[in-house]
Order: sequence, then C-alpha cells, then structure tokens
Amino acid sequence: MPLDPQAGIEITAFDWVPPFAVGLVRDLRVRWALEEAGLCYRERLLDATRRRSPDELREQPFGQVPAFCDGEIRLFESGAIVLHIAERSPALMPADAPGRARAMTWVFAALNSVEPAIAALADIDLFHADEPWAHARRPAVEADLHGRLRQLSNALGDRDFLEDRFTAGDLMMTTVLRILRHTEMLAGYPNLSAYQARCEARPAFLAALQAQLSALSTRQPPVPA
Amino acid sequence: MPLDPQAGIEITAFDWVPPFAVGLVRDLRVRWALEEAGLCYRERLLDATRRRSPDELREQPFGQVPAFCDGEIRLFESGAIVLHIAERSPALMPADAPGRARAMTWVFAALNSVEPAIAALADIDLFHADEPWAHARRPAVEADLHGRLRQLSNALGDRDFLEDRFTAGDLMMTTVLRILRHTEMLAGYPNLSAYQARCEARPAFLAALQAQLSALSTRQPPVPA
Repeated sequence: MPLDPQAGIEITAFDWVPPFAVGLVRDLRVRWALEEAGLCYRERLLDATRRRSPDELREQPFGQVPAFCDGEIRLFESGAIVLHIAERSPALMPADAPGRARAMTWVFAALNSVEPAIAALADIDLFHADEPWAHARRPAVEADLHGRLRQLSNALGDRDFLEDRFTAGDLMMTTVLRILRHTEMLAGYPNLSAYQARCEARPAFLAALQAQLSALSTRQPPVPA
Repeated sequence: MPLDPQAGIEITAFDWVPPFAVGLVRDLRVRWALEEAGLCYRERLLDATRRRSPDELREQPFGQVPAFCDGEIRLFESGAIVLHIAERSPALMPADAPGRARAMTWVFAALNSVEPAIAALADIDLFHADEPWAHARRPAVEADLHGRLRQLSNALGDRDFLEDRFTAGDLMMTTVLRILRHTEMLAGYPNLSAYQARCEARPAFLAALQAQLSALSTRQPPVPA
C-alpha cells in the first residue's frame, strides 16, 4: 500500500476542492505514478481555503499542488514529478534510450500539445459558461480541440498505448483526456475512448484516485460567506 | 559553429512563418540548447505553406516543429528535446541530483504554469484582437497573467537565475516570457525584465536566434490567394 505515513517520499495535496475538480487535481498524476512504481509515499494536505504561506510558496511558487520531496530532492509541477519517478521505475519507462525518449516525448505532448486545447474548452465550460464572450468563443475552441483529438487519434491508431507498452506518457495523456469528462467529445474517437478506459482500468490508477478522493473528504467544505 | 550539414543530430524547422512568429517558433528553444551544449546539428526545413505529409505526421503527430533525431533517438515537443539535451550537458544542468531535479522542475514550470497564462493573452492579441469576445475577455486574462508574473517575480527575487546558476529551466522560461514582446507587461517586474535581458544576451541565445532567422529567410513568403 503506497500511502504510508512513514514513507520517505512526501507529496502535497489539497484537503478540499470544488466538486468539478474532484478526481482531476494534479496530485492524481503523481499518486498514480507512485502506485505504478510501487513506491510508498506520505501526503501533506494543505487547507485549500486559505492563502498559501510564505513557506508553501517557497515550495510551490504558484500556490498549487502537488509538490514532491524525497530527502534533498525537491520538485514541483506534476509533469516534472511524474518524469522524475518514471526515470527511476521500469513500470513507467523502458530501459532503452530510444524508448525513454519516446516516453518523455509523450509526457510533454500530453501537457503541451493536448492539454492546452482541452483546458481552453474546460475554462469556458467550468468557469465562464454563462458569459457572453464564452458563447461567442466556444465553437472555435471546440473545433480546434477536435482537430487536436483527431491528430492524437491518428497517432494512437489501433495500438493499446501511444508506444508499444504503457509508459509515463500514457499516464499523463490519460489524466489530460480526463479533463473532458464533462463533455461527450471523446465519443467521436472510439480508439481514444477505449484507450482512456484501458488506462483508467489499471489498478494503480484506481488506487491513486481512491487516495485522492480520501484526501479530499478529510474536511468539510467551507461555509459560503 | 553548431549548424553543420554533416552533424549527426537533425532538427526540423519551418522555412517561413508569419512576421508575428519570427523569433518565437519553438525550434529556437532547441537551437539555443544545442548552442549552450556545444552540440553540432543540421536542420531540415519544412515548407510551412503546405499540409504536412504522412511521414512528417509520423515524426510530429501535431504537424508542428521541431522534431529531433539523433540516430535511434527520436523526439518531438520542444520541452522534451531541450530536457533530453540538458540531461547530457553540464552547461544546461548541474551534476548533482537535487540540482537536476530543480532544473527539470523549472522547464515544466515555464511550459505549464507560465506559458498558459501568456499564451491566453497572445492568442487574443495576435489572432483575435478585433473580435468582440476578445475585447470582453482580455481584461481578466491580463489580470490572471499579472498574478502569475507576480508569483514568478517573487520566486526569482534578486537572483540572476531561477536557481543558483543558468539551467535549461532559465532557457525555457526566457523563451516563454519572450512571447510577451508585443506588450509592456514585463516592465512592471524589473527583476523579470532584467532576467529576460540577461538570458537573451547569452552568446548561445544570439547564435540560435540568428540561425532561426536565417532559416526563415530561405524562401519568399507565399503569395496571397
């Protein structure tokens, strides 16, 4: 069981988020990587309803989660942390240099070629749905995203994973595609839908999700002012 | 001189882009990393005005540049390529594990915590400036970006670089901040402006920029239909 208060690895996570973010907060990626790698970790939960302290901003300058600490190794950014774990775990990266380069490439592709198009739509739908500018803007954002999903679908083809085995790149891509759960957009790409389901069926994903959900239920939601 | 037709490393770049993108295209990041590392490379220029071929999409599924090839090592995504080069070059990453983790963290922070806020403003200003939705949306996007720049400015403090020496993280952050060149936004953060100027004064940056500008002047712009 990777979650262990005595573990050397520590990650930060929030103790509460609004319902739309439950199961999407970026610590999920790191928990999943640690589960796949079989590495124990402890969690330090941050009060999501107050401003971040100077110490917390030294650890994560943008006030977000997760941060990662393992002795003298200190990282933030879910991408950096997942890649750090992956470089040390055969479960997340093959041993050969060409294969490692491909896994790393897909981690970045998920975050920098796919997530921006998905985040643009989620920003409209989850934060600005009722604003007039969002109504005017949404069709073009959705069209751009379809273009990107089509390219990703073509790249995946009929394979089970983006390369010839599961890697950190699939882990990251799955957590990015997951941001579309409030839409039906993936339904138009059967290979991507199946890929998403295949990756989310992994025991390590399910354990990571359960750990995040547990953390997010450790306190009551804030009382509205 | 890193640009060498006989070099083992090959990168792709475009042979033309619209004026607003000159000096910003992502191959600049890779050229800069190769210059800092002192690694020779050759360039393969793609005709920017036609659709990407099936072979080109196998190499770069999203139809972008750069892609990178070094024997059996094949990557795309400027972040992945820069990190791949950095992991092999003391000029871009310290030798100690904690320092390497920090350099990697800042590469991801540039791409995933700073670039999204900058790209949102650039998308409005460079592609949609005259659209009504953009007028309605811009003030909040600019405010969000100021919040992010303030956090970055606080993280940099009075240091010359994001950590105690120049790393791949500074390289990436500089190319991200550069996207704001059409605005005066950095002027409000003197330490960030000075940081940007300091990094862009490096001989390796200047050589990389010159190489991109040369590539972009190898053909005439397309004739408007």
